[in-house]
Amino acid sequence: MRNFDEETITEAVLERVGQARDPRMKQISEALVRHLHGFIREVRPSQAEWEQGIRFLTGTGHMCDDKRQEFILLSDVLGVSMLVDAINHGAAAGATESTVLGPFYVEAAPEKALGANISDGIDGEPLIVTGSVSSLDGKAIAGATIDVWHSDGDGYYDVQQLEETGGLTMRARFRSDANGKFYFWTIRPAAYPIPHDGPVGKMLDAQGRHPWRPAHVHFMISASGYQQLVTHIFADGDQYLDSDVVFGVKDSLIRMFAARPAGVAPDGRILDAPFHHLNYDFGLTPA
Amino acid sequence: MRNFDEETITEAVLERVGQARDPRMKQISEALVRHLHGFIREVRPSQAEWEQGIRFLTGTGHMCDDKRQEFILLSDVLGVSMLVDAINHGAAAGATESTVLGPFYVEAAPEKALGANISDGIDGEPLIVTGSVSSLDGKAIAGATIDVWHSDGDGYYDVQQLEETGGLTMRARFRSDANGKFYFWTIRPAAYPIPHDGPVGKMLDAQGRHPWRPAHVHFMISASGYQQLVTHIFADGDQYLDSDVVFGVKDSLIRMFAARPAGVAPDGRILDAPFHHLNYDFGLTPA
Repeated sequence: MRNFDEETITEAVLERVGQARDPRMKQISEALVRHLHGFIREVRPSQAEWEQGIRFLTGTGHMCDDKRQEFILLSDVLGVSMLVDAINHGAAAGATESTVLGPFYVEAAPEKALGANISDGIDGEPLIVTGSVSSLDGKAIAGATIDVWHSDGDGYYDVQQLEETGGLTMRARFRSDANGKFYFWTIRPAAYPIPHDGPVGKMLDAQGRHPWRPAHVHFMISASGYQQLVTHIFADGDQYLDSDVVFGVKDSLIRMFAARPAGVAPDGRILDAPFHHLNYDFGLTPA
Repeated sequence: MRNFDEETITEAVLERVGQARDPRMKQISEALVRHLHGFIREVRPSQAEWEQGIRFLTGTGHMCDDKRQEFILLSDVLGVSMLVDAINHGAAAGATESTVLGPFYVEAAPEKALGANISDGIDGEPLIVTGSVSSLDGKAIAGATIDVWHSDGDGYYDVQQLEETGGLTMRARFRSDANGKFYFWTIRPAAYPIPHDGPVGKMLDAQGRHPWRPAHVHFMISASGYQQLVTHIFADGDQYLDSDVVFGVKDSLIRMFAARPAGVAPDGRILDAPFHHLNYDFGLTPA
């Protein structure tokens, strides 16, 4: 096979990648070649534009380390993450809807006791989060693992400011109690721009887009016999609910982060200052 | 905009990227979203496969440094580089055909005098390369810049073995003489596998493909008033001419690396050992 032109090159590459032993690898490779060549044939990049594309991908890779995942950001802002989420998570009645994982999940979040304050002294408005985990028919799920993480009141995650925070904070892992309930204290997160000092931020700017996400708390909930749920709960009234840069908002995931006066909190504690209260009851789909 | 499903997400992202101020940025962004979402909708990746894709791109980025360009390799083995080349370089009569740049070009190659030996003591079979640079109507182009680079007899480039070679070698920049001619000595390059110890190598293996390229010498030729030419000259008879992993071979770019007995070489030198001779007369397209 030689002398390929603009049309024959695609068949040649398809023939080559079609040698894959694994049928799924063959399917993905062939689809990738067809769609990628279709894109190139449509936009007809100059040699300089191709080089710019190579530099963009290289720069995106170089921004990635154990605390920053620029390719996940890219997937998020191009709507790919939400598309993959939609493909994999149909919404059964009673099941909490899913949304993107985002780039700030950390596997080794510390396990804490129910009621713990996970803000570790970071400044902010107190927030108590309460909720429950149950099956689609409403049966409480005891011992579910509930991973939570969120930003501070300025919109930054712990991993973006490890020198200041001194370690992981505003993230923890809890277990639901015998009645499927959980609760913990933290500080109210704020809306924030995704990290936009890298290639993805430059792309957003060139596309005339803002980099903001509405305020939210991340949840990853796992329980034996159920599908893992990855989602957020968004703050009602946030100005970015309709223009989330990663297309992650669903109405069913919006709740009031309700302002409460000083006094008795839902867990019986007495607060001498105002606080906020977020409650969400999660429904898990059987595995 | 909220509550996107598998179908509505694409329109939402198109609306967002359609805000780009620059019309070319808008066009490329919209085409990217359509083709990328089309790919995702066709292969329906699981969450785990999406993560594998993110890891693949991240690993590809991490392999890139100032001596290794894994994203160019990826573009090459998926036929994208040759497709972009075909889009940008029509073949005017008398013009030498182009092929891929490849990942081993170095901008700062040393300028050398015609007749120099650029192998700098690297072991190998002596090869004299002769040729000329002319316009489409056969007029000699004097003072053209001729960048050349190639592998050694084991298939490795200087930049892959800098500890052993001690610097740049088997690459140089020449100027054509008053008659448009050039010539230099080096060693015969060999067929070689592209670097396949990274993510691209793993992908090739999973696709059931070998990583080999037929033996060749790279040329980049520039002259005022003419389009820059990026091409290779391939060794006739090489076993990989029909299965070049980057789809770069064109019949017009194949020449004998002709075996010659000891004796008088084309530049008048007398050799006491056999050598090889490659000649190619290049034609440049007006700018």
